[in-house]
Amino acid sequence: MAEAATKIRPRVLIVGAGFGGLSCARALKHTDADITIVDRNNHHCFQPLLYQVATAALTPSQIAWPIRALLRGQANATTYLAELDAIDLQKREASAGGLNLSYDYLVLATGATHSYFGHDDWERVAPGLKHVDDATAIRRRILMSFEEAELTQDAAERVRLLTFVIVGAGPTGVEMAGAIAEIARHSLNKDFRHIDPQHARIMLIEGAARVLPAYPERLSSYAALALARKGVDIRAGVTVTGCDARGVDTSAGRIEAATTIWAAGVRASPVATWLGAAHDRAGRVLVQSDLSLSGHREVFVIGDAAIVKDGDGKAAPGIAPAAKQMGQYVARAIRARIEGREPPAAFTYRHYGDLATIGRNDAVVNIPPVTLTGFMGWAFWSVAHIYFLIGARNRIAVAFNWLWDYLTYQRGVRLILGARPQD
Amino acid sequence: MAEAATKIRPRVLIVGAGFGGLSCARALKHTDADITIVDRNNHHCFQPLLYQVATAALTPSQIAWPIRALLRGQANATTYLAELDAIDLQKREASAGGLNLSYDYLVLATGATHSYFGHDDWERVAPGLKHVDDATAIRRRILMSFEEAELTQDAAERVRLLTFVIVGAGPTGVEMAGAIAEIARHSLNKDFRHIDPQHARIMLIEGAARVLPAYPERLSSYAALALARKGVDIRAGVTVTGCDARGVDTSAGRIEAATTIWAAGVRASPVATWLGAAHDRAGRVLVQSDLSLSGHREVFVIGDAAIVKDGDGKAAPGIAPAAKQMGQYVARAIRARIEGREPPAAFTYRHYGDLATIGRNDAVVNIPPVTLTGFMGWAFWSVAHIYFLIGARNRIAVAFNWLWDYLTYQRGVRLILGARPQD
Repeated sequence: MAEAATKIRPRVLIVGAGFGGLSCARALKHTDADITIVDRNNHHCFQPLLYQVATAALTPSQIAWPIRALLRGQANATTYLAELDAIDLQKREASAGGLNLSYDYLVLATGATHSYFGHDDWERVAPGLKHVDDATAIRRRILMSFEEAELTQDAAERVRLLTFVIVGAGPTGVEMAGAIAEIARHSLNKDFRHIDPQHARIMLIEGAARVLPAYPERLSSYAALALARKGVDIRAGVTVTGCDARGVDTSAGRIEAATTIWAAGVRASPVATWLGAAHDRAGRVLVQSDLSLSGHREVFVIGDAAIVKDGDGKAAPGIAPAAKQMGQYVARAIRARIEGREPPAAFTYRHYGDLATIGRNDAVVNIPPVTLTGFMGWAFWSVAHIYFLIGARNRIAVAFNWLWDYLTYQRGVRLILGARPQD
Repeated sequence: MAEAATKIRPRVLIVGAGFGGLSCARALKHTDADITIVDRNNHHCFQPLLYQVATAALTPSQIAWPIRALLRGQANATTYLAELDAIDLQKREASAGGLNLSYDYLVLATGATHSYFGHDDWERVAPGLKHVDDATAIRRRILMSFEEAELTQDAAERVRLLTFVIVGAGPTGVEMAGAIAEIARHSLNKDFRHIDPQHARIMLIEGAARVLPAYPERLSSYAALALARKGVDIRAGVTVTGCDARGVDTSAGRIEAATTIWAAGVRASPVATWLGAAHDRAGRVLVQSDLSLSGHREVFVIGDAAIVKDGDGKAAPGIAPAAKQMGQYVARAIRARIEGREPPAAFTYRHYGDLATIGRNDAVVNIPPVTLTGFMGWAFWSVAHIYFLIGARNRIAVAFNWLWDYLTYQRGVRLILGARPQD
């Protein structure tokens, strides 16, 4: 094949260093390609544990690593901290950070952001949880609410300040609700003199009929019971019709709340717009069975930015393992083409299972045919998440933090930062 | 005495939970007084290690603790996160966060900020290091400079981006310069493909004739040599005449630099203005020998906000041990008055010594008659700082981080955060 015969090293441009982009870059380590990876953050973030940063259990550096440090030992990889400005599919060139980056293969792994279902103005009052900065901002809001409640003399305002609304009861929403309940019940219960943090109301709103709607019903029921025991007020079958700085309007009435956290919808980053490509309602690019763009075999879209359906029409879910599998698949495909070998068969997603923690000693795990709940689920969840962290240092630090918090019922990272205006 | 006979518990209001305010609050634990402590941050910060947050070695939560968690077990202490709005000396009342707080004793421990010697507009381009948010902002600037240098195609701009100017060669300036030199030489040296971080220029500017001007000359010379060996370019006897976003003007010419860090002057917080009290040029309130305000025996000013001269006219320096000693002294004075006992003799500051680290394996320690340099100084510095941290958790975490960095030459907290606009 022409590609294999050329003397010039093929250039692979990867945009986005999340689970998909990073796994693709790493899988191309021992190839003759030059890899360039561009991300607008300097770090790869382990999103499954972001909620622990938001709830003061972990510090950002324990779940985020500088991308260029992760690729330090990979001599064929160059990292740029830059935002993608444009793609020219005809010239096979992208511009980012003032550079024109020519490519032979382009991998777009730019992920997803929150969807407010057409109400983008809600984002300001009901932040979601996708980046480290989101997590520290939410941490600040949660902790500030307790501080302001301690100061206020107005009883109604105190109730509003101690009301926390989480919209969406998927894994993230469930984990946030459980963690906030524990902060109120255990971590802060002796810290205030005028309020009792245990009186905080934590409301979990879900449009579907049950929490964790994508999980088996038995696990949903278990999670609902466990959350209720922790004091979480679940409102299933309720939709949000409005969000403002003072509360939330729902199909079941108004809730006055100082803190609203959005864990509901997801919308792909605007790859489809950049490419002028076909997409679904969530903005995900409809890719071919080899994850390439129709008409452009050299362009791949992976992870939360793409949608690919397997033989029986099922799409891979927007979770880390799916993005990783896609990244590795595309690396294999590129490698095969570079080396002039047969390309791999169509991408198929392998689902290992679902995990969601509800809090101390409690999680639901569904790895068919096995389901785990309670302490066993929680132990499995903890070990699995430490295993998937990158680097021994972070594994040790997170394990130490968790053990300490477990023994003391405390939260180690209760800092309110970034409240001053910054440059 | 009248105060001892009254049935009503005396109210002590402490403004500021730095070393001075916190040590005062803690020393009043076993008294019959009601303590209220007000701070505009939710955390007490261990400022001597702030430069390690700024240089990506430690994470904010390792050197900062929620004030209310520190005072959790002290039933007579109430904490408010609020800014002081006004003091009414006649009514003995302060307002903060919408509350009117009456006091029988008032302790002002609001610390100091940077002095730009009348050029407050320099602050925006040459940030100082007093708060956790300052440290993460400086960390972002340092790391962003390397990132932008990797991207630029312009050779002169690359030099400017890799030039770091530190203004002021007291302990903080020396520590910052040494740490940035180590980041460039060791931590980042394999992470970039287009720049060599070892070519970074680190310039330490000092108006006095030598670095660490307050230390014995022998230690100054030692520190200067050690810094030079690390590649720090020392400009002693040079004053800064201008600062802008592109560099620094000095008495010895212009330096083009993307990052300027201010470690030069200190100015007290505006306590003297609030009180209408006599103060020195740095804004520090001139207090009586018992640290009280002239004409107001019930008002005390301590720490960096005050200046007190002992018998031979020497003032206590603006360092943590001095603030702690003042806080403890005022607690003793208040306690004596509450209990109707003789007040303690005039405050005297006891100086234990000076420490400054230059980097890996190197520090200068001056605890007369002992001086230590090199590895011995560094070992002493490390142990002393871990000892003075609050809480076993942070001691373990910091010791672990330092050990890991020492063995790997890495920096664990190289995150660029807060670059997105935040609410």
